Amino acid sequence: MSDKLRVGVIGAGMMGRYHCETLALRLPGADLAGVADIDGTAAARAAALAPGALATTDHRALLADGSIQAVVIATPNDTHASLTREAAAAGKHVFCEKPIALDLAGADAALAEAGRQGVKLQIGFQRRFDPAYREARRAIMDGELGAVELVVGTTRDPRPPGVEQLRRSGGLFTDTAIHDLDSVRFLTGLEVVEVFATASTLILENAAAEEGFADTAAITLRLETGALVVISNSLRAAYGYEVSMEVMGDRGKIAVGYERQTAVRRLTAEGVRHDHVSWFLDRFGEAYTAEMAHFIDCVAGDREPEVTDADGRAALALALLAERSHREGRPLPAGEPACR
Amino acid sequence: MSDKLRVGVIGAGMMGRYHCETLALRLPGADLAGVADIDGTAAARAAALAPGALATTDHRALLADGSIQAVVIATPNDTHASLTREAAAAGKHVFCEKPIALDLAGADAALAEAGRQGVKLQIGFQRRFDPAYREARRAIMDGELGAVELVVGTTRDPRPPGVEQLRRSGGLFTDTAIHDLDSVRFLTGLEVVEVFATASTLILENAAAEEGFADTAAITLRLETGALVVISNSLRAAYGYEVSMEVMGDRGKIAVGYERQTAVRRLTAEGVRHDHVSWFLDRFGEAYTAEMAHFIDCVAGDREPEVTDADGRAALALALLAERSHREGRPLPAGEPACR
Amino acid sequence: MSDKLRVGVIGAGMMGRYHCETLALRLPGADLAGVADIDGTAAARAAALAPGALATTDHRALLADGSIQAVVIATPNDTHASLTREAAAAGKHVFCEKPIALDLAGADAALAEAGRQGVKLQIGFQRRFDPAYREARRAIMDGELGAVELVVGTTRDPRPPGVEQLRRSGGLFTDTAIHDLDSVRFLTGLEVVEVFATASTLILENAAAEEGFADTAAITLRLETGALVVISNSLRAAYGYEVSMEVMGDRGKIAVGYERQTAVRRLTAEGVRHDHVSWFLDRFGEAYTAEMAHFIDCVAGDREPEVTDADGRAALALALLAERSHREGRPLPAGEPACR
Amino acid sequence: MSDKLRVGVIGAGMMGRYHCETLALRLPGADLAGVADIDGTAAARAAALAPGALATTDHRALLADGSIQAVVIATPNDTHASLTREAAAAGKHVFCEKPIALDLAGADAALAEAGRQGVKLQIGFQRRFDPAYREARRAIMDGELGAVELVVGTTRDPRPPGVEQLRRSGGLFTDTAIHDLDSVRFLTGLEVVEVFATASTLILENAAAEEGFADTAAITLRLETGALVVISNSLRAAYGYEVSMEVMGDRGKIAVGYERQTAVRRLTAEGVRHDHVSWFLDRFGEAYTAEMAHFIDCVAGDREPEVTDADGRAALALALLAERSHREGRPLPAGEPACR
Repeated sequence: MSDKLRVGVIGAGMMGRYHCETLALRLPGADLAGVADIDGTAAARAAALAPGALATTDHRALLADGSIQAVVIATPNDTHASLTREAAAAGKHVFCEKPIALDLAGADAALAEAGRQGVKLQIGFQRRFDPAYREARRAIMDGELGAVELVVGTTRDPRPPGVEQLRRSGGLFTDTAIHDLDSVRFLTGLEVVEVFATASTLILENAAAEEGFADTAAITLRLETGALVVISNSLRAAYGYEVSMEVMGDRGKIAVGYERQTAVRRLTAEGVRHDHVSWFLDRFGEAYTAEMAHFIDCVAGDREPEVTDADGRAALALALLAERSHREGRPLPAGEPACR
Repeated sequence: MSDKLRVGVIGAGMMGRYHCETLALRLPGADLAGVADIDGTAAARAAALAPGALATTDHRALLADGSIQAVVIATPNDTHASLTREAAAAGKHVFCEKPIALDLAGADAALAEAGRQGVKLQIGFQRRFDPAYREARRAIMDGELGAVELVVGTTRDPRPPGVEQLRRSGGLFTDTAIHDLDSVRFLTGLEVVEVFATASTLILENAAAEEGFADTAAITLRLETGALVVISNSLRAAYGYEVSMEVMGDRGKIAVGYERQTAVRRLTAEGVRHDHVSWFLDRFGEAYTAEMAHFIDCVAGDREPEVTDADGRAALALALLAERSHREGRPLPAGEPACR
Repeated sequence: MSDKLRVGVIGAGMMGRYHCETLALRLPGADLAGVADIDGTAAARAAALAPGALATTDHRALLADGSIQAVVIATPNDTHASLTREAAAAGKHVFCEKPIALDLAGADAALAEAGRQGVKLQIGFQRRFDPAYREARRAIMDGELGAVELVVGTTRDPRPPGVEQLRRSGGLFTDTAIHDLDSVRFLTGLEVVEVFATASTLILENAAAEEGFADTAAITLRLETGALVVISNSLRAAYGYEVSMEVMGDRGKIAVGYERQTAVRRLTAEGVRHDHVSWFLDRFGEAYTAEMAHFIDCVAGDREPEVTDADGRAALALALLAERSHREGRPLPAGEPACR
Repeated sequence: MSDKLRVGVIGAGMMGRYHCETLALRLPGADLAGVADIDGTAAARAAALAPGALATTDHRALLADGSIQAVVIATPNDTHASLTREAAAAGKHVFCEKPIALDLAGADAALAEAGRQGVKLQIGFQRRFDPAYREARRAIMDGELGAVELVVGTTRDPRPPGVEQLRRSGGLFTDTAIHDLDSVRFLTGLEVVEVFATASTLILENAAAEEGFADTAAITLRLETGALVVISNSLRAAYGYEVSMEVMGDRGKIAVGYERQTAVRRLTAEGVRHDHVSWFLDRFGEAYTAEMAHFIDCVAGDREPEVTDADGRAALALALLAERSHREGRPLPAGEPACR
């Protein structure tokens, strides 16, 4: 047996597949040991990336494999909590895509099990591994901005998911806004004390709209110091994928984000034109690799991941509070129980 | 008597002085006929821009001068309503700096008097005369974006005013945020149906802080179509003056605003560096001239100004509602009475 | 008689008209005293900008008017030298559009006459009055870049002039490239020791092409320190007007120029799009005003203009050398006689 | 034996090492079969990337290994021609870093041997595999710009090589400028008919300067249609690595290149600041991978590489002509024999 960390991946959809490639091809310290997906063909395709990797439709086969030391959970959101709990119970270290759960009870049960078993648990907030977010956090923590006063956050997906994915993801707040909520905590190092959110259904159609899923949201946060945050989210941006966060303090502002993907500019009688980042993997591909490398390192070196399970729970709590604020039409203090 | 429009200016502070220069030097169709300021030296200095212009410490001297056809009101905000009413009663056309008043009763009385006297009344929302805002509005009205979904607005002043100016201006909502509130209506053509605002005092010190003036605000608006708006305001930005508004619809986004003032870029071992717009007159000098030209044209041609008194009242109503939302800590429907 | 400087303008074409507006409307220290143009209608229209200004088809009427202290020469290039000589002989201070002449003999005769009469002579290199060029020069002179190593200059007009204008302008080198040649001297403070130029006719058609006018040029300069310069010029750019200059030294680079004219950006499925500077007056309007203000100040205060007649001669010498280099197909040392 | 292409790498310096990583880690269709470097430690370190890869100090061990089908030559430039000839003679397909040789005789001998042996020979012009250059070429070939009129090219390295590397690289023209010379041919599809180059030694010191190596160059090219090109090169740019090329035609301009590396912007009282691309692997890492993938595909599928050996020879011929033009101080027609 090699001294590489043997990792199984549960879920071989787009993100699961990407994590499989990272484990098989990009990280010398990891082996892709197996892939589980209820779609056996997808599991097999992903497992083919690594010689000898197991493909299965039953994730329990991975959990039962004593040679597998860690698992990556990249299944629909509504399974994250129970799979994390189950994997931890089986003694596996766990890398779980965000959100850790769709309700706080589920999150707490998963965290408790991981604690009991003494396994590492890292949540997939990949922006924390993007060089730009890291540099921004470092500068803010070093006091470059002085005291933080205002944050403006934006996350807009290029196109909305299907209704089935919406149902399983928990919707805009737990699936999309949660990134901004985590980034505010990461970049400012401050906790949220009040949340107001409001949302609309402007893009979704048919069943998704009938079931009341929101696709457009505005969130206001008050931080512990009185600093304020405005966030806007959308499930569709005609121009591509947009993620940015600006943090202003008394000495200046740091802005993370960019519009251009490639190095071509066209200048014609219609003006100057360039492309826009079109897809989240174009923007964050390296960050996804870096977060997995961090997880492998932490497990191998028996260190706590930088993105703790408490971070995963805190962001979820804010997302749920935002959703409840939206439903109740009023701002809520951060201590309030959430709506689920 | 020349066939130029003879205009008196009440208030010779920074903005009043700028309007005097515009009338005296930039607009061939206008004559600066007189300047009133309680500071007689300031009035005299401004009046010196035009041969024969009257300088006075009593604005009633301008109102009593039958050769003066119109007045510009550029005094502290708390005098706008009464001066507008007084000038209208004297039969003068009125260009009044924003806000038209500090409460709706004052605004309504001023509007009523202008209506009774049949004089023109234009409010100084200069952004409506900036080429970028005009182009953006035109494109949005032409349907270039499809249905509007999200708006992100930012106005940040380079440095806070003194406490005396704060007291007389009505504060952040009626003095600064009112620009964004008006720009949302101008760019989208949509009315606001709900307002939530929250604010902090992070920058102001001493008396200004003790009197509870806010310097940092986050505002969320819901528009009549369900489209959402987030606005952030600050009375200080270390990097200069920042004004931007992005409007996203289902076909794309139009962003108004820029960071660079001049054409110099420095590339050194520290990276690439350029300047930032540092002062509102650098950004909007031409717009201030254009709005005054429009006013002169409207009076001369007996046409209604594009910025109507109803626009001035609507923006004020939103600013007051935002302030009340902040004080009461809850979102308010647009029909609610405001806090003053 | 007022204590403003009374200035006559010879030539009421586009640039002459602009200078008339500056003198009549923008500069408090100057009076537009008269306008001469062989097109009497154009002269009358420009003279109407200032009450009492003389309109004439004969520039000698301006030169004969004892109340006129200075003249602006904005006629076709082939008349600059003789008009400057004539105006100086009449004791007028002279602001002459670039180039000072179309050959060095003409330039020298004009300079000599100005010297004999002790009148000021300023050449219209307006880029020297653009805030960006001034800031760049200041920084370079302060040693911010260390020793200059490389310069890249670009001037491209939006569309070519007609054949008649080409004939009278002396062509691409003396009319367009001369700006870059002067800017190299201005920004670096260094003299040119070798010139190589080559040019093509790719854009012009019919008579202009048949007469051999070049519309596209590449110029290489060697400066006295061994620093190198590449310049590209074109009489047409489909996207608008393009002027930039980058100066690199051992500590970094300063780049002057920008692409965006206004503050609107569009983001759609086709990418991100913004406008481009479309016309030289959009880019340099303020610089044209500033150079005229400087001329008025210099005459009023009896100071030498910053753009000396020697600067005008030096740039012309380089432009003529570039043209000769192009014709002879070889690099030429700066001391060489030019081709005309 | 696997059906992956077994590739040996000759030269384990920075570029050789990068190619080793690509073959071992990034390309599923290739196996890193061995590494040769006169520095045995470097060879061993690189070979350790792939299990079972041979490490040797004698490249002939790779050429003698019948299981190795192709070699990558990433040694000093002065060995490229002889190693290519030797590898081709041994029946290996060859990927050779630019330049193919340091003189045309060497290039021709290498090309002839590859032809005789029927092996593929691809030259390492990685810019041709950068998405931006490819998109620009595609657009230009599709006629998006109309007829090409002007090209402005820039390549500046962050810091100069040591004297030993200069001696073996052939200097600025064959090592750096050759990229721009190739890119002109690639982007425009046009051939060069005249070259003028001039160069200076402004940066290099001590032995490198004493031996007369140039570090700063300006190159003018005339293309077969009369279109003109200006290129500037430098061996040092304090702000980082700069590569750009702008191609202007009668319908507009396409500009390839960018300044920003990461997504962070800082806005402070000093202005707006962001980073700059600092190193060629930051800018072209993906392109280096893509060119190697292309080579592997071509060998595996028995197709001619897109970068032909004739492309490698043509760029070398231009680089040598530029150097001769610089030495002789005159423009040279493209047919002229070069200086070496």
